[in-house]
Formats: sequence, structure tokens, C-alpha cells
Amino acid sequence: MKARITVTLKNGVLDPQGKAIEHALTGLGFEGVDEVKQGKLIELDLTDSDAEAARARVTEMCEKLLANTVIENYAIELE
Amino acid sequence: MKARITVTLKNGVLDPQGKAIEHALTGLGFEGVDEVKQGKLIELDLTDSDAEAARARVTEMCEKLLANTVIENYAIELE
Repeated sequence: MKARITVTLKNGVLDPQGKAIEHALTGLGFEGVDEVKQGKLIELDLTDSDAEAARARVTEMCEKLLANTVIENYAIELE
Repeated sequence: MKARITVTLKNGVLDPQGKAIEHALTGLGFEGVDEVKQGKLIELDLTDSDAEAARARVTEMCEKLLANTVIENYAIELE
């Protein structure tokens, strides 16, 4: 089973990487880009076969290691 | 219109970030994690209203700035 985790900054948290990308895009002549946010994507290959158990485990991984829940949100998709 | 771009390393390209996460998860006692890949997630807020035109523009942004197409793949989702 594969898990796909997206970690994004919470609203209101400064995102200098996103700002840098926005700036670079404008510099390259791309107009009409209002806001850019950069996040992380983590793909896990799990040996679990039960989706419920896998989701619980991945949630624990996010809380303990993969996301800083003070400033970041995470979303889990299982395939 | 929002665009969500995921940038991942191509197969065969070394992924030390992924390996570090895998190692840390094992260290925390999470068993059964076979492979970990870390990628980037970029969210753009575009003023375009035409999906076709937006996709073409975002593809150009990826080719020129957002992804290093020698070692990275990218996928674009529009909402």
C-alpha cells in the first residue's frame, strides 16, 4: 500500500520559499500569479494491507516526525 | 484558478532526504516502511480562468523554473 502525504504551512505562517518562487516567476515574465505556497510531499511504501490500520500508523508518523504540527498541516492519501 | 504541482525525483536518482526519513521512522519504531521518497509541492494561485491556457502556462513554469527536468518529474493538477 502506498501513502502520499502532503505537508503544507498553516495559513498566516511566513513562507519565504513560496515568496522566492513568486518573485522568480514574475522575473521570468509570468504574469497573473497571485500567491505561491511551497510544501513537502512524502511518499511511503507500506507493507500494511489494511487501509484503516495504515492510516492510523501514517497519522502517527506525521504527528511524531513528518510534520511540525505547530506550523504545518498534513493530508494523507492512501492508494 | 489553483494549480497544484508535485515535483518528484525520477527513478534511479538518489534521494538522501527520503533515506533519512526512512531511517528516522525505523528509529522511532515504525516497522514495515519499505521505501520513502521526498518531493516538493508547489501551489499557485492563478488569475487565468481558461484551464487549457493555465495548464500550458504552468507547464512552461515547470520547465523553466519549478522542476529540474534532468532529474525530476512533475505533475500538474488544476482546480
